Formats: sequence, structure tokens, C-alpha cells
Amino acid sequence: MSGNFLRNAWYMLAWSEEVGEAPLGRKIVGDDIVCFRGRHGLVALADRCPHRFVPLSLGRVADGVLECAYHGLRFGSDGRCMFNPLGDPPERAVVRSYPVVERDRVIWVWTGDPALADPDEVADFSFLADPARATVTGYAHVRADYQLAIDNLSDLTHIQFVHRDFQASEAYHRLVDDTWQDGDIVYRSITFPNGRPAPFLQSFLGPDKLIDFTMETRWTLPSNIKLSATVTEPGEPDKYVIGNHSAHLVTPEADGSCHYFYAHSRDYGVGDAEADEKIREWQRVGFGEQDKPVLEAQQRRVGHRDIMELRPVVLPTDAGGVRARRILAQRIARERKGSILEAVGDQ
Amino acid sequence: MSGNFLRNAWYMLAWSEEVGEAPLGRKIVGDDIVCFRGRHGLVALADRCPHRFVPLSLGRVADGVLECAYHGLRFGSDGRCMFNPLGDPPERAVVRSYPVVERDRVIWVWTGDPALADPDEVADFSFLADPARATVTGYAHVRADYQLAIDNLSDLTHIQFVHRDFQASEAYHRLVDDTWQDGDIVYRSITFPNGRPAPFLQSFLGPDKLIDFTMETRWTLPSNIKLSATVTEPGEPDKYVIGNHSAHLVTPEADGSCHYFYAHSRDYGVGDAEADEKIREWQRVGFGEQDKPVLEAQQRRVGHRDIMELRPVVLPTDAGGVRARRILAQRIARERKGSILEAVGDQ
Amino acid sequence: MSGNFLRNAWYMLAWSEEVGEAPLGRKIVGDDIVCFRGRHGLVALADRCPHRFVPLSLGRVADGVLECAYHGLRFGSDGRCMFNPLGDPPERAVVRSYPVVERDRVIWVWTGDPALADPDEVADFSFLADPARATVTGYAHVRADYQLAIDNLSDLTHIQFVHRDFQASEAYHRLVDDTWQDGDIVYRSITFPNGRPAPFLQSFLGPDKLIDFTMETRWTLPSNIKLSATVTEPGEPDKYVIGNHSAHLVTPEADGSCHYFYAHSRDYGVGDAEADEKIREWQRVGFGEQDKPVLEAQQRRVGHRDIMELRPVVLPTDAGGVRARRILAQRIARERKGSILEAVGDQ
Ligand code: FES
Ligand code: FES
Ligand code: FES
Repeated sequence: MSGNFLRNAWYMLAWSEEVGEAPLGRKIVGDDIVCFRGRHGLVALADRCPHRFVPLSLGRVADGVLECAYHGLRFGSDGRCMFNPLGDPPERAVVRSYPVVERDRVIWVWTGDPALADPDEVADFSFLADPARATVTGYAHVRADYQLAIDNLSDLTHIQFVHRDFQASEAYHRLVDDTWQDGDIVYRSITFPNGRPAPFLQSFLGPDKLIDFTMETRWTLPSNIKLSATVTEPGEPDKYVIGNHSAHLVTPEADGSCHYFYAHSRDYGVGDAEADEKIREWQRVGFGEQDKPVLEAQQRRVGHRDIMELRPVVLPTDAGGVRARRILAQRIARERKGSILEAVGDQ
Repeated sequence: MSGNFLRNAWYMLAWSEEVGEAPLGRKIVGDDIVCFRGRHGLVALADRCPHRFVPLSLGRVADGVLECAYHGLRFGSDGRCMFNPLGDPPERAVVRSYPVVERDRVIWVWTGDPALADPDEVADFSFLADPARATVTGYAHVRADYQLAIDNLSDLTHIQFVHRDFQASEAYHRLVDDTWQDGDIVYRSITFPNGRPAPFLQSFLGPDKLIDFTMETRWTLPSNIKLSATVTEPGEPDKYVIGNHSAHLVTPEADGSCHYFYAHSRDYGVGDAEADEKIREWQRVGFGEQDKPVLEAQQRRVGHRDIMELRPVVLPTDAGGVRARRILAQRIARERKGSILEAVGDQ
Repeated sequence: MSGNFLRNAWYMLAWSEEVGEAPLGRKIVGDDIVCFRGRHGLVALADRCPHRFVPLSLGRVADGVLECAYHGLRFGSDGRCMFNPLGDPPERAVVRSYPVVERDRVIWVWTGDPALADPDEVADFSFLADPARATVTGYAHVRADYQLAIDNLSDLTHIQFVHRDFQASEAYHRLVDDTWQDGDIVYRSITFPNGRPAPFLQSFLGPDKLIDFTMETRWTLPSNIKLSATVTEPGEPDKYVIGNHSAHLVTPEADGSCHYFYAHSRDYGVGDAEADEKIREWQRVGFGEQDKPVLEAQQRRVGHRDIMELRPVVLPTDAGGVRARRILAQRIARERKGSILEAVGDQ
């Protein structure tokens, strides 16, 4: 087992709309996986033909099964070759099949022991499919370890600096934060109390209104974050003004790189295409030109080492990221111990 | 000795027209080689000046010898420095010289023991220089092991899938194939019997004529293929309609990459520039956009391993490629054993 | 200690004008360094925030200190964190600070033991700041070991070949050269006696005037060269016609790559913008299209080895480069022995 990843976990593989008529190939926790919509629904297979090892994702879906681009062997949902254009399908021609679930516009894949795959363990991101909301999605490939992306999302104080032009708040120095845990779920909130709206809120609230602005994150295993941003009247947390949810679904690609799927979902201005466009532009700049370069530069400095080996200075605002890393490390250790015991038991 | 290559072999280094006034540098079986037209004909030398190790291919041919681009030492056909602009040529300034042969528009280089180089062993591709034929040549650099390219050419059933838009035949499922061997030469043929012409043949034959279409390959050591495609009347192999030869000359560059020289040569439409242009377009698409991406994706999946270690599923249509690989493996093993015995004998 | 570099040395880090309002990040002898103009002058720090290891060079100078781009910790000239926007600066938050000197438009950094840093050891390039001269500067990143660049500059016979179109002289074959040493300084001169001007001199001297043309280099540790080119009347070295100085300041970036800072400084045509433009064009072509490709091709041939291991043929014209390499090798060996002794003494 290589890579510092949890195997027994549901990882986001793609947005639903990414998998249409053509198969989609993507590397997840080091495994090359191909996903397609087959005769009986969504399928995820190892993306390597057992004949000459060409990626199956170069092929096409024909008659509801996946046809290899090179010599036309066809594979069904269980990974078995079910058609050979020039003879019988060879018995040994079978590729690994991965449990896969599609829910709320997200395609999730289980990379561990199929017997342990429980679709009920997929974290709740149902707001993504709520027709009463306006949801804008996106994707970025990031050349940085997925845990650096979790750190980023677990410590939202960075918005004051990385996203200064959109999000800097004059209430920053009065920031109040909290971190709490519920089983393996880590919550964290930061509130900018009684301040004027940051630039990105001014188009909705004007520049002068005083507000409390709170961002609450919910981290769930392995590396997914739901962020709820809420504007309330100063000192009156129940007096809701506006708010939005966002999804930050991070999937390790391999050592040192990850897939970052994001979505912004609001309950106001639904159907307003211009507002969608503004969000899309913010995502492009905020993730593409601000977070991504920081994460990738950080990765270059950290290199192949675990960041903790470099003995970083830890700040109180790291509390959420530290807990998430600890839970993840324990689960990975337990899983590895399990596989070792299993391996010993096999003998 | 590194790399899974035969050293005592003639490899295609370049098309004749690639070596003109300027020297040409190309890496072959891991050796950097420079080729130029010198005072007494074609010369191939190690492409590294013995002074400060600048590639000699950056230099120029001056007075029929090769002048280094850096400080002007000049080298003749035997690899000896024969001119130093500021003094006597240093005795130690000598680079390795490779046997080289130019024949039928192809420049061949011998990368092994010069004493064993026999120009008569160069495979026959004389059709390339036949003035009665129209021949269109090309070159592609491929980031894939040369043996993957041989596999590709030894199993032409792939044309039905990889080159579907040009070459798919409705007679595919009736395909008849054969494999035979003559010493170290492997022949293979596939025939699409009694079918309508594939798209690329329709401009010559119309869409409805029934034909037998046969492709016969001749593989010779180390990695060169002559392909003869012939259209005959159904069931009457002697009633020739049209046909062409093509050359597929593959030279390993280094581990995991190769040079692919190709030529298409027809005995009809000679002098028809528009037909040439169509062939050139087909080569660009067929090799550049279809075969090359498949081979390179396959290489990424196979990685540094030998493909056989991955235990591929073998199909009957692999018969030609399997034989070629076996012959090559035996020859490489014999050659290595030879060099070890020689090395022991030297002590 | 990795890399074949002298640590206790002043290296050129940047031209003065490269460090303005924004910090500049550059890798020197394998160390990532950030340079900025702070409250009390120029500062050079390790370019890695001790919190989450983001490069500090991505940040900004705020109130005369360096603010990290990620969470806003601020660092002063001694490398200590002096401001945390959300609390006290953590004591452990401190980065290495490097001695730095700005002189004659050049910023120098000391990469070794700070106690040994003596600004008086910075080599004299005062001509660069002489207001009576016209000086044009530039920079090139070169994927070649810094010692290959020193070799290049120590053996100027290469201009006849690499820069043939600008600098080839019909007097080349009458070339007279000399090499001498003064402590750790290596001097070398080559003279093209009684010849017509090379192309680049013809715009000043016409094509027919007979001249002596002399180029004298002064190499100083670690890898800096002052080159003085002088035109004198034939046989009368005291009858000065025109001349120029140039600076060639080479700084190792890491193994196999270097920074090449260059300047051309003339005492004629001062204030002539068109002449400046011509020089700039010559630098662009001469360094960017002529020297750089040669050095990088040479590096690819030499690879990770030391060039001397490959047993190069040595020519008399290598005398300067050989001496410079020898001095450097001795100093590096002495320095390493020193650190080993020190390490032993520490126990
Ligand atoms: S490689 Fe997939 S069918 Fe041959
Ligand atoms: S490197 Fe070839 S002559 Fe100097
Ligand atoms: S990484 Fe620099 S302040 Fe956090």
C-alpha cells in the first residue's frame, strides 16, 4: 500500500455532468479508474485493459458496455470481458470493479474492500441538488497533497490574506473562533463580529451596513468540507440576513496532487444568470489564481516529506486542521494494521 | 549495457533527405549519434565533443568534416580530431565512429561491434526508392517502448478500432488470419473477405464493390516492418485490383521512447500531388492522432516494467507480436551472454 | 551539505532594480531566499514561512516588514516573527536571516556562516555604477552547472565559433594568450593582433582599420568575472582607441542550474539610447540564443557527473578555467573539512 491515503472511504470521483456518453478516466488515491454510464447504470472499473494495458477510458460505450479503444474487447459492470469481436471472451480478461454511488450531483467511488462499502456513509451534501438553490460547480487539479487543501479549508483565517480583494474584513482583528468535534466529524466556526461587509458581500448588502459574518465548516472523512457562510444582524445570531453553502470536496490523486471539486450554493438570486457568472468568476480567481498557487508553492517547499516532520509552528487557528489530520492519521494507521493482520491471517 | 535493446543490429537513423548540409543529431538505443555528409560520404559519430562535451550536432560541416560549435575542433569520418584552429589536434581527441549505410532513401546505423556490421543484413525496403511508385514518408517521435510499436504493427486487427473512421470494415467479423516464420523473419496476414471497401478505399473503388482485402506484414530484426496491402477480387487471390506497400521502421531512442519512421508507397496515381497530400493527411491523423496517443497511454500504464511481467491476457491475434518478441528476447539474451563471456575472456 | 558549492561566499542575488516594492524570491546554492527592502534597509531571509511553509516571497512588504501571504505573520530583518494578526507572535516562528550587501547596483548575499561574512570581500565591480559610463544589464536562467558557465567565460576563444556572426576575427589564427594568477584571482588575456575589426566593432571603427583587440578576464571567487575588452593601435598597447568592461556574475541555483547576471558597460556613446538598444539586442542573441543553448546542451551530455570524471581532452586555452576550477575545488574541500572538524568538536 503506497500513499498516505485511507482506502476504505468514499471519494468524490466526478460531478454527475462530467460523465455523459463518453467514459471518464481519473486517478484516485493512485488508482487509475474509468467511469461510465452502462446498461444498468453507473460503473467504475480499473482503467487498464487486461489485454495490452491501454486505458479503457480511451474507448467508448457501445451497447451499454465499455469497448477498449485498441482491439475492441468489451467489459461490463462487474469488470468481466463479455465480448471479443474475434472469438470467445478470454476468461482471464477481467478488471477490478469499484463500488460507485451517485447522489446529489456527485459521483462517489469506494477505493477499499468492496465488502465494506456502505452508501449510507457518504456525507450529506444534499443542498447541491436542492432545486430551491442556485448552485455553481467547478473543478481544479492541484499539484499539492490533499491534506494541504484540507488545512487550507480548515483554517479560514487565510481569506483575509489570500483573498484580500474579495473577502478582507475590517472586523478581522475582533475575530471569534471555535472548534468542536462530534465523533469523526470536526466543526469549526469563525465570526467577524459587527463589521462592515467584505467586498464580495457589498453588492448584496451595500458598503455600510453592520453585520456579524460567520463561516462554519464541517469536515468529514476522508477529506470533504461543507462550508456555511451566514450574515446575521450584529449580536443577534437568529436574525438571518443572507447566507450560502459551499462544498469543498478534495480527492487525492496520488502523492503530492489532488482533485479539488467545489460548489457554491445560494438561496437568493436563484435563476439569476448574471449572479451565477459572478460566482464562477470568483471561483476562477479565488481557487485558480489565489488558493491554488499558494498550495502548490507550499507543496514545493514541503516536498515529499510529511509536513509535520518539518516541525511547523502551530497557531491556535490550526485547531480544526490539526484535529482532522489526527483523525485521518489514526484511521489510516488502523486500516494498515488491519491489512497487515489480515495478511498474517492469510498465511 | 542498459536498455532492452539489441546492439548488433542495423537501426534506421534517418530518412536520406533529413541529412543535408547540416549535421543531424539523434539518440538511438541510448547512444547520442550525429550524422553528416562528409568529404567521403556519410558519417555517423558519437555526438559529444571530447573537449568539453558539447553535442557535435550543434556544429557545422566545414571543408567536408564536422566542426564543433564551441571551440572549432574538427572531426573526420573515423572520429579523430584532424584540425585544431589554435594548434595541433590533440591525440586523445577522438570520438566513436559508427558503421553507417544509406540505401533506398534510408540511413541505417550499426550500434554494436563494428567488426560484425554487414551491410547485406539490412532488410530489403527497395520499394521505397522505386521510381515507378509514389512514396510519401514521415516521422513521429513516440514516448513508448519500441516493442509496443512492434506489437501494434504485428496485430493489425487494431485498425478496426483505432482507425475506425478510415479503415473499419464490415467484413471484420469474417476476418481470416495466419502467422508463419522463416528463420528470424515473422510473417503475418489478415484478410477481410468478400466485403465492401473500408472508407479509405472508397475513393478508389467506390462504396459498393465487393473485395477481398489482405494485409501482410513482414517483421525483420530488430524492429522493422514491411506491410503489403492488397485488394483482390473476392475468392480470387490472383485477380489483383490495387495495392500498396508501407514501411514501418521503428528505432528505440532510449528506455520508453522510440522513433517511428513510416512511408506509404503506391503503384497507382504516381505523380498525383493531391493523392500524396491525402496520404500525408492520413499519416498525420492515423499515426499522430490515433496510434501515437494509444501507444503513449499504454506506455504510461506499463511504466518501467516489461509488459510481460504484468501478465497480459494473450489473444490468438497476438501470434505475430509474440513471435517477434520471443526472437528479439533470445537475440538480446545471446548477445549479452556473449559480452559477458568476452568480458571474462578479457581477464 | 549537498551540491558542489562554496557556502562561505558572496553570491550575486539580484540586480538592485529587481527588488522594489515587492519581495523577490530566488534559489541560491540550493537555498530558497527572499529579499526585500525593509524598514531598516535590505533584508534576505529563508523563503519559507515557519507556520505552514508557504514561500514568504509570495507575500508583501507591509509597514516595512515582510507579511506572509497565507495567514499574515510578519517577519523583520532578523527573521523573527514580530506580528501575528490574531495574537502574540509565536516564539518559535523565526526564519534564517542571511547577510546581504548592496553595492554598485548589485545585491550580494552570504550563504555561509554569518560570522565570517565580510563585505570587504565583495569583488570590485564599481564600473557598474560609474555615471560616466553607459551600462546595460540583463539576466538569464541557465540549466547548466555554474562551473560550465565559468569555463565558458574563462576561455574566450569560443567567441570565434559561438558568436561567429558578431565576433569572428580574421586574426584568430594569430591569437596570443596568457594566463596568470594573483592569490585566488585568475587573470587571462587573449589578443587578436593586427586584424580588421570583427563585425560588432565595425559600426565604431569601420571595416578596414587594422587594430589589436584584447580581452582580459579577471575571475574571482566564487564565480564572478570582469571582462575588459580593449582596442589599441597595432603593436602599440598604450594607444587606446575604444574599450568596454562587462560583468559576468554567475550564481549557482542548485545542482545543474545557475543564474547568469550580465552587464555591458562602455565609456563612449553614453546617453545614446539607440546604442543601448543594440547592446541589449546583442545580449539577447549572444547569451540567450548562442551561449545558453551551448551550455545547456553541454549539461545534458555531462549529466549529474562532474565533468572531470569524464576525462575531457584539455587544450592550452583551458588554462584559465582549469585554474579557477582548481581554486574552487580546494576551497570547497577546505570548507567541508572545516565543517566536519567543527561537527566532531561539537560532540
Ligand atoms: S488492449 Fe484492450 S482490447 Fe487489446
Ligand atoms: S567543446 Fe568541442 S571544441 Fe571545445
Ligand atoms: S503560512 Fe505563513 S502565516 Fe501561515
